[in-house]
Amino acid sequence: MRSETKDLASLRSMLESSLLGEELYSLIRELYPICRSITGAGFRETIAHIGKEIPLEVHEVPSGTQVFDWIVPKEWNIRDAYVKNTRGERIIDFRRHNLHVVNYRGEDEYEVCIDSALENGSLTYGECYLPGESRAEVLISCHACHPSLCNDNLSSVAVATFLAKYLCGARLRYSYRFLFIPGTIGAITWLSQNEADVHAIQHGLVLTCVGDRGHITYKKSHRGDAEIDRAVAHVLKHSGRRYDLEDFSPYGYDERQYCSPGFNLPVGCFMRTPHGKFPEYHSSADNLELMDPASLGHSLMTCLSVFYVLENNRWYCNQNPKCEPQLGRRGLYRAMGGNRDEKLQETAMLWVLNQSDGDHSLLDIAERSELAFDTVHNAASLLLHHGLLKEVRTQR
Amino acid sequence: MRSETKDLASLRSMLESSLLGEELYSLIRELYPICRSITGAGFRETIAHIGKEIPLEVHEVPSGTQVFDWIVPKEWNIRDAYVKNTRGERIIDFRRHNLHVVNYRGEDEYEVCIDSALENGSLTYGECYLPGESRAEVLISCHACHPSLCNDNLSSVAVATFLAKYLCGARLRYSYRFLFIPGTIGAITWLSQNEADVHAIQHGLVLTCVGDRGHITYKKSHRGDAEIDRAVAHVLKHSGRRYDLEDFSPYGYDERQYCSPGFNLPVGCFMRTPHGKFPEYHSSADNLELMDPASLGHSLMTCLSVFYVLENNRWYCNQNPKCEPQLGRRGLYRAMGGNRDEKLQETAMLWVLNQSDGDHSLLDIAERSELAFDTVHNAASLLLHHGLLKEVRTQR
Amino acid sequence: MRSETKDLASLRSMLESSLLGEELYSLIRELYPICRSITGAGFRETIAHIGKEIPLEVHEVPSGTQVFDWIVPKEWNIRDAYVKNTRGERIIDFRRHNLHVVNYRGEDEYEVCIDSALENGSLTYGECYLPGESRAEVLISCHACHPSLCNDNLSSVAVATFLAKYLCGARLRYSYRFLFIPGTIGAITWLSQNEADVHAIQHGLVLTCVGDRGHITYKKSHRGDAEIDRAVAHVLKHSGRRYDLEDFSPYGYDERQYCSPGFNLPVGCFMRTPHGKFPEYHSSADNLELMDPASLGHSLMTCLSVFYVLENNRWYCNQNPKCEPQLGRRGLYRAMGGNRDEKLQETAMLWVLNQSDGDHSLLDIAERSELAFDTVHNAASLLLHHGLLKEVRTQR
Repeated sequence: MRSETKDLASLRSMLESSLLGEELYSLIRELYPICRSITGAGFRETIAHIGKEIPLEVHEVPSGTQVFDWIVPKEWNIRDAYVKNTRGERIIDFRRHNLHVVNYRGEDEYEVCIDSALENGSLTYGECYLPGESRAEVLISCHACHPSLCNDNLSSVAVATFLAKYLCGARLRYSYRFLFIPGTIGAITWLSQNEADVHAIQHGLVLTCVGDRGHITYKKSHRGDAEIDRAVAHVLKHSGRRYDLEDFSPYGYDERQYCSPGFNLPVGCFMRTPHGKFPEYHSSADNLELMDPASLGHSLMTCLSVFYVLENNRWYCNQNPKCEPQLGRRGLYRAMGGNRDEKLQETAMLWVLNQSDGDHSLLDIAERSELAFDTVHNAASLLLHHGLLKEVRTQR
Repeated sequence: MRSETKDLASLRSMLESSLLGEELYSLIRELYPICRSITGAGFRETIAHIGKEIPLEVHEVPSGTQVFDWIVPKEWNIRDAYVKNTRGERIIDFRRHNLHVVNYRGEDEYEVCIDSALENGSLTYGECYLPGESRAEVLISCHACHPSLCNDNLSSVAVATFLAKYLCGARLRYSYRFLFIPGTIGAITWLSQNEADVHAIQHGLVLTCVGDRGHITYKKSHRGDAEIDRAVAHVLKHSGRRYDLEDFSPYGYDERQYCSPGFNLPVGCFMRTPHGKFPEYHSSADNLELMDPASLGHSLMTCLSVFYVLENNRWYCNQNPKCEPQLGRRGLYRAMGGNRDEKLQETAMLWVLNQSDGDHSLLDIAERSELAFDTVHNAASLLLHHGLLKEVRTQR
Repeated sequence: MRSETKDLASLRSMLESSLLGEELYSLIRELYPICRSITGAGFRETIAHIGKEIPLEVHEVPSGTQVFDWIVPKEWNIRDAYVKNTRGERIIDFRRHNLHVVNYRGEDEYEVCIDSALENGSLTYGECYLPGESRAEVLISCHACHPSLCNDNLSSVAVATFLAKYLCGARLRYSYRFLFIPGTIGAITWLSQNEADVHAIQHGLVLTCVGDRGHITYKKSHRGDAEIDRAVAHVLKHSGRRYDLEDFSPYGYDERQYCSPGFNLPVGCFMRTPHGKFPEYHSSADNLELMDPASLGHSLMTCLSVFYVLENNRWYCNQNPKCEPQLGRRGLYRAMGGNRDEKLQETAMLWVLNQSDGDHSLLDIAERSELAFDTVHNAASLLLHHGLLKEVRTQR
C-alpha cells in the first residue's frame, strides 16, 4: 500500500524537475503534420505513432456497424487538394498544411481540386490498458481525430500518452484505461462495444485543450460530487494556482456520451482554456506556437496528483475510538516547540482519528480539515502502522 | 397536449398587445363605489357584478354555522352614516364615500349618526370552477370584502375575474377554482365546507395588491419549494424585471389558512407591493389613482405565464439513454452557423435528453440549465414528436 | 413547567443587577496562589476550596489505573524550588509565585534546587451533580490543573462553581453535572469510569478562558448542529454583542475527548478569547490583571441563558391545526394599535401555531421566525394555557 504511494509520489517529484514539457511538445510536433479525420489513414498513422510510445491495442470497427443510435461511417481519405490560380500556383495547398491558406489578392480564375475517397472501411481507435491490483478502473479518454490542430487536441493526445508511459512503471491500485478515439462516434462506438464492462469505471477524465497558457478548467461529471470531481477540486484548491470549476452541461466533448443517462459514469472534463474561449479555436492558428511546454508539463503533473489522491483515498476505522490514543508513548507526539511540519502532522493525526468512523474517507477528512491530501494521507499511514486504524473498504 | 400549450401561448401573446390593463381598470372602477364588508349587501352586490363576467356559483352560509374554531357572524348592513356640524352640513358622509372624511376645523358640536343593522343572515362567497382534463386543480383565491379600497383588494378581484374569463376558453390540463371570499372567515368557511376535497389542490395562489406601480413580490407557500413556488420564481427570474421573493410567514392574507398545519396546501401569495409597505395601505388614498393599468395587465400576464409552466411541466424518460441520439438524421441538428435560436434549441434538446431519467421535470431542467421554460418545453415537444422521450408521470 | 422557567428567568434578571462579576473575581483571587498540577496536593487543595461553595464529591483514582489507552500517572508534588545567585538571593522563587522569575543580569554562578517527589498516589477530581426532574443531563466540564494561570483556567473554575451554586436553588428539568478535572487525563479518566452512563448526557459545554475582555467564542461540537450548538448560537445571535462561532476541530480542550468517535457527545467549547489567541496565554502574564469582572459575569449570564433555552425547548402539536384558532375570543388578540410587544407576541403565537406539527421545537421556531426564544416560549406558554398546544415529546 504505502510502497505504491511512494512510487507515485517520488515519480511526481522526479517529473517536476525534468524536461517533461519539452518531451510532450516534441510528440505534438511529430503528430502535427498528419492529416487526421474521424476515420482513415491519418487517424491510423497517428495511432501507430502513439503505439511506439506505449503498449497500444488498435481496434478497427467496420463501416456500417450499428453503435446504439448511430452507424459507423465510411472511411474518408484525402489524397490531394488545392486551389490553383491561372499561373498554376497553388494558393491553397493541402500538401503544405491540411488547413493551409496563403495570402492572395485580386480577381482571377481558380482551379479547385479535392482528390478524396469515401468508401467502406473501418473506424480506428487505440486503447492502452494498464492492469492494477483491482479491476476497478480509471478511464482517460481523448479525441485524436482533429486535423492539424494543436490545443484541440494533440495536447491531450500527448499528455495521455505520457501519463500512460509513466504509469506503466508504477505499482497501481486501480487499472487505467487510455482511449485515443475519434470524437463523438468513437466514444459511442467504444461504449457500445464495451457496454458489459463499463461498470468497472470508477473514475474518469476526458482530456482536451491542455497545452495553452491559460489556467486549468475542470468541468464536473454529471453527478457533480463524484470522487473524481472532489479529487480534482482538492488538487486544484491546494495547487496555489488560479483555476476554474464548472458544473456539468451536456455540450462539450465526450463526457456528453459517458455522462448520458444510460451510463452516467463519473467522468469529468479536464482542460486549460475551454473550447471556444481561445481565439485560435478551430482555426489554423491553433498551431505549435499556441503550445506552451510548461503548461503541458503542468497539465500532466496535475493529472498525476489527481491519480495520487484516487490511489490513496481510503476509509478507515479508528481502533481506539474512545478518547484519543496516547500518541506520546508511540513516538507520534511532536516535541515541545516542534516545527511547522510536525505540528501539521499532529493536527492531521488528530483529524484522522476523530473522523475515521468508517464513513469518512481521507479525502473527506482533507476537505473538512482543509489540510492537503498528502498531509492527511501521511498521518493515516503513520497511524495505520501503529495499529490505530483499520481499513474498512476501499471505495464507496 | 401540445395544442393546449399553443392555446395558452397564443393567448398570452394576444393579450400582450391588447388593452387588457384598461379592461381591468374599468372593472375596478365599477366595483369601487360599492360598500363592502365581510358580510351583507355590499359583498353580495360585488359578487353579482363579477357573475356578469364569468360563470360564478354564489354560496350563502348561514350566520351561526360552526366553521372549525370559528362561527359565521351575523350580517352587518349599513344604511347611512354621517357626522353633521351645527349648520347641518355632513362633514363625514358615508353616501359620498364609504371611507369619506372632509376637511373641517374649529370647535363645534356634531351630530353623529350610524344607521346600521347587525342581524342573522349569511356569509356570501363566489366560486368559479373551470374543469380541466384532470381533477387536480389550481386554486386562485382573493378576498373581496374590503370597502372602497382599490389595491387591497379590488385589483385582485379584477385580475382573478379576467384570469377566469380567459381560461374559460382554453383547453386545460388542470381544473381551476377561483374564490371570491371575505378575508379570513371566508377562507376558513370554504376550507371547512370543502375539507374532503382540498386534496385535489395541487397548486394555489392568493392574489392581493396587484394593481400598484411597484414590482412583483411573491411570498412562498409554507412548503417553500412547492411546484407553484418554483414556477413563480422561474417566471419572475426570466421576466427581465425586478421582483422580490419572500419566505413564508404566518401573517399576511389567506395563505395563513391554506398553509395552516392541518392543511399545508401549496399556496403562495402573489402581490406587487405588500400590505403595509405602500403609504396608501388601508386608507382612503388606496383609491383609483393608485391603480396602474399597465401593472394590472402585467400582473395578469405573469399569472398566465405561471399557469403555462404548471400546465406544461412534465416528467419524461429518454428513450435513447445510452449516448446521445443522432439528431442530424432526424433533422434536429442545426445547420453550421445556425442562428442563436437554433443553438439555444439544440442546447435545450441536449439538456432534456441528458436529464430526462424520469426524476427530473421540465421545470427542474429549466432551473439547472438556466434556460427559459418555454425553450425547454419546445425542445421536449420536438423530442417527444420524434419518439425520443416518453412521459412517465404527470405530477409528483 | 412554567414555574421552573420563571425561576430561571427571574434568577437571570436578579443576577444581571448584582455584583456577580466581583464574586467570581474573588474566588479566582483565592485560588490563584495555589500551585496546581494534573495530580497532587495543589489540585486537591483547589478542589477542597470549591467544595466550600457547592456540594462536591471528590474522587481519587489510584496511579497506575488503566483508563482506555492511558494509565493514571504518579503523583507529582513540589515542596520547594529556587535558583539562588552567589549572594544567596533567590532570583527564581517558587514560594513567591509558582511561575515566578525575577529580573537579574550579569554573569554569575547559580544554585538550582527543585525539591519535588514523583510517587504513587492518585488522580483527583471534583464532581457536582444536581438532579433535575429527568435523568437526562447537561455536562459542564472545566480543567482545574493549571498552575497560577487565571484565564486558562481559573476563570472557568469560578464560572462553573457559581453556575452550580445558583442552579442548586432552582427547579430543573435536566440534571446538571459539573466536572472539575485535570485536563486530558481527567476527561479520559472520567469517561473511562463512567462509560456506562454517558448516554444520559444530552448537552454539554467545556468552559475555558471565560474571564478576559474579548468577546465570546463558541466552538461547536463534532456534530455541529446539536441542540447545544443551536442554543448557544441563538443566544449569541440575540445578545446584541459581537461573538464568533467556530466549527469543531480535534484540537483544543477536553471536547476532544467528549467528541471522540467512540462517544461523539454533543459537547461544545465555550470561551471568550481562544487559547493561543491572547498574548498572555500560558505565561505568568495570564494573571489577575487579565481578569475582567464584567466579562466573568457576562460569561456566567450567557451560560444561564443557554440553559434557559435547553430547559424550555419543547415540541408541541397544534390542537387546532385546521386554519387559525380564533385568538380574539380567548383574549389573545391584541387590541387595535397594540404596542410593539403585543404585536411581537401575536406574531410569535401565529408562528408557534403554524409550525407546531410535532416536528419543530420552540428553538426551531425561534430560528425560522428570527424571534428571540423568550418571545416564542412566552407565546407557547399562553397557547398551552388555552389548550391550543399539546406537548408531544421533551427531546429528540
